[in-house]
Amino acid sequence: MVRTGSNGSPRLAVMNFLNEIAGDFPDAISFASGRPADAFFDLERWLAAIPAYQHHVAERSGISFADAGRWLAQYGRTNGVINELIAAQLAADDGVLCEADRVIVTAGCQEAIALCVQVLCGAPGDVIIARNPTYIGITGVADLQGVEIVPLNCAVDAHLPGELRDVVLRLRREGKTARALYLIPEFDNPTGSVIGAAVRRDMLDACAEERIVVLEDNPYGMFRFEGERTPTMYSLDQAGSVIYLGTYSKTLCPTVRIGCAVVPPTLFGDPAASRGLVAALGELKSFLTVNTSQLNQALVGGILLEEGGSLAGQVAPQVDYYRANRDRLIRCLEAELGGLGADIHWNRPEGGFFLTLELPFRFGRDEVLECANEHQVIPMPMSFFSLDGSQQQCIRIAFSNVHPEAIAKGVERLAGYVRRKIGETADATV
Amino acid sequence: MVRTGSNGSPRLAVMNFLNEIAGDFPDAISFASGRPADAFFDLERWLAAIPAYQHHVAERSGISFADAGRWLAQYGRTNGVINELIAAQLAADDGVLCEADRVIVTAGCQEAIALCVQVLCGAPGDVIIARNPTYIGITGVADLQGVEIVPLNCAVDAHLPGELRDVVLRLRREGKTARALYLIPEFDNPTGSVIGAAVRRDMLDACAEERIVVLEDNPYGMFRFEGERTPTMYSLDQAGSVIYLGTYSKTLCPTVRIGCAVVPPTLFGDPAASRGLVAALGELKSFLTVNTSQLNQALVGGILLEEGGSLAGQVAPQVDYYRANRDRLIRCLEAELGGLGADIHWNRPEGGFFLTLELPFRFGRDEVLECANEHQVIPMPMSFFSLDGSQQQCIRIAFSNVHPEAIAKGVERLAGYVRRKIGETADATV
Repeated sequence: MVRTGSNGSPRLAVMNFLNEIAGDFPDAISFASGRPADAFFDLERWLAAIPAYQHHVAERSGISFADAGRWLAQYGRTNGVINELIAAQLAADDGVLCEADRVIVTAGCQEAIALCVQVLCGAPGDVIIARNPTYIGITGVADLQGVEIVPLNCAVDAHLPGELRDVVLRLRREGKTARALYLIPEFDNPTGSVIGAAVRRDMLDACAEERIVVLEDNPYGMFRFEGERTPTMYSLDQAGSVIYLGTYSKTLCPTVRIGCAVVPPTLFGDPAASRGLVAALGELKSFLTVNTSQLNQALVGGILLEEGGSLAGQVAPQVDYYRANRDRLIRCLEAELGGLGADIHWNRPEGGFFLTLELPFRFGRDEVLECANEHQVIPMPMSFFSLDGSQQQCIRIAFSNVHPEAIAKGVERLAGYVRRKIGETADATV
Repeated sequence: MVRTGSNGSPRLAVMNFLNEIAGDFPDAISFASGRPADAFFDLERWLAAIPAYQHHVAERSGISFADAGRWLAQYGRTNGVINELIAAQLAADDGVLCEADRVIVTAGCQEAIALCVQVLCGAPGDVIIARNPTYIGITGVADLQGVEIVPLNCAVDAHLPGELRDVVLRLRREGKTARALYLIPEFDNPTGSVIGAAVRRDMLDACAEERIVVLEDNPYGMFRFEGERTPTMYSLDQAGSVIYLGTYSKTLCPTVRIGCAVVPPTLFGDPAASRGLVAALGELKSFLTVNTSQLNQALVGGILLEEGGSLAGQVAPQVDYYRANRDRLIRCLEAELGGLGADIHWNRPEGGFFLTLELPFRFGRDEVLECANEHQVIPMPMSFFSLDGSQQQCIRIAFSNVHPEAIAKGVERLAGYVRRKIGETADATV
């Protein structure tokens, strides 16, 4: 009768496993959780931004400060009240140009993902494509809504658009329709990779031809450590095929639970369809969470007012911290794993929270338990993010909320485990 | 491709109509919106409760105040962090006794409703029963999740259990399974009625026999104007058949977006099934809103600490205000409509936000427009809450957030309309 996680989503069992293991081994150093660094949370200052927004409302509406407070405390507009401030910040920081009435403010970005999947994939046979491996939030939504999620596998980025067309063709032959393509093009979770501008353009062309909506999730775009920022797919889109998904969980903090979806000005050239999409997302939201807390919107709105519309200054110290963590992680990996053979690899993410480490042996559930139990370190098997059982020899290392000293210690422990496993493999093949 | 409101839920079109009409006729007095009275919102004091909760966390966990702030600002437990404080308040104020780990803290009660429907009605043919007319939040959720919602029609409360059994039998013959019964037993939205304790017990017996989960939604229970409070169905339940749904939107204010679901200690006698239900609700929540804002939980938690666990003192002035509004409304109805004939009736709600007015003519969409346009008053047709097209001659009058002077003026205007309509009807029958 009750739909349990194991029936609904095998990924849920995986997440529970990871949550439990962290509790079972409290002394282990965890590379598993991709949380923002809490050293930069400044709740006291941020709470003071609520009256700042309240003043803004009072001035704009010509009402008293007290009345603005009562207005904030009441039910409110389903699609949000700080939409203009969000639109201005997205323009300043992400090159996302949009009218405020195409912004839907959500209870965290996860709600935006859930709304989009339900609204876009309403008919039997409607499927979502996602680059494989992918963020567990989209997989969980798809599983729980009974929408098939189809992997887009591609080792070479330049082949992504071609591979996408092949997948769409194959789905069509199976009587299915690809409705959405979920991507984190900038500093992907879980891989840390970036899709280049040229490939983004080609993928947009393919999506426009096939009338596939790109769900561009961009939680990490502001955390670039070096080099030029890649234009968002939303800003490159000329066909009306990209819904941009934003969040303040990383630039500010998760407790605000404020995210957003930005609907394109037309849906594949049709402005009425775009308005219909905004309305449908809002209608669905009204029966999930009614409206997003105006208190939390006031906090974010107040900070946006205080920061003059851009969060670039706000995130600068975090970017420095994450960069230093990435550099330290790579130095430690080089020192500890560099001499262990040519079949151990890692990428050098130019930003974000995650690094991919490839090993010469299988690393799954049993191996995490071994690591936690015998080496006091918890890495995250990349296979947990896989849509097709692949990624068996990869690890996701989250370096965002690990203390610098713990990074060195954690890599040392992980290397101890890797050396042991390589030794066992070598013994077995003698 | 996009699922719009008109496809997804005809009720959405109705809600949009009502929202628009309020905007189109800003000078009209509205009896349509069942919002809590914003005169009692005290945002400044409530915001000051956040550091109070933060201190509580610091003390309990033996960490610094600053660390407690960083913990609050981070992601957190899916099912919530103020569960113990909520459990204590529910025990004190609603006679709902529960362990904290059976409380799921949600982003408003609407999320709790959406979670319960999706988890309980997972198979084809699973349906929800609701007393007709009913709250639009349950209807919208059912429509959008594709779950059939079946009306429980009953003019005499004592016949409700028998009628419920008949509906269940009929559904079974149709190959369907009743999974949940949605009720607001205390000061119902939309009717304002109360189901008595004896009938509650009989309905619980029927539900236990048929293994139907009662979703007991209780947003208005603390707003009783006179007489004894009826025991909650949760507190009467001995079979493990009631999920209790709570909210702080009315006792505090809607912007906190904090509600909860309380799962019974056993599910029809099975404690493991109850634990499975808690887990399933939490897993689903993790992919809808991740977790409920800990900032908002801290605000509610801080107030609960300051108020010593009960909100009875907090709501006392509101109860007085709503009672005075109800009294004024009834006095005005008596004065304006009392002499207009025996086929005009209204109930005298003993609490809550709503009163039902029966008219001797049809009152629907066209009639609201006439009222708003020609009489500057906006009543809410009860048929908008109907599951089967009934309630054509009833109105829901929300008296919760109407200024006392506006009540008199509004009833005067409404009476003008009623007199005109009765005159037209009389003319037509001459």
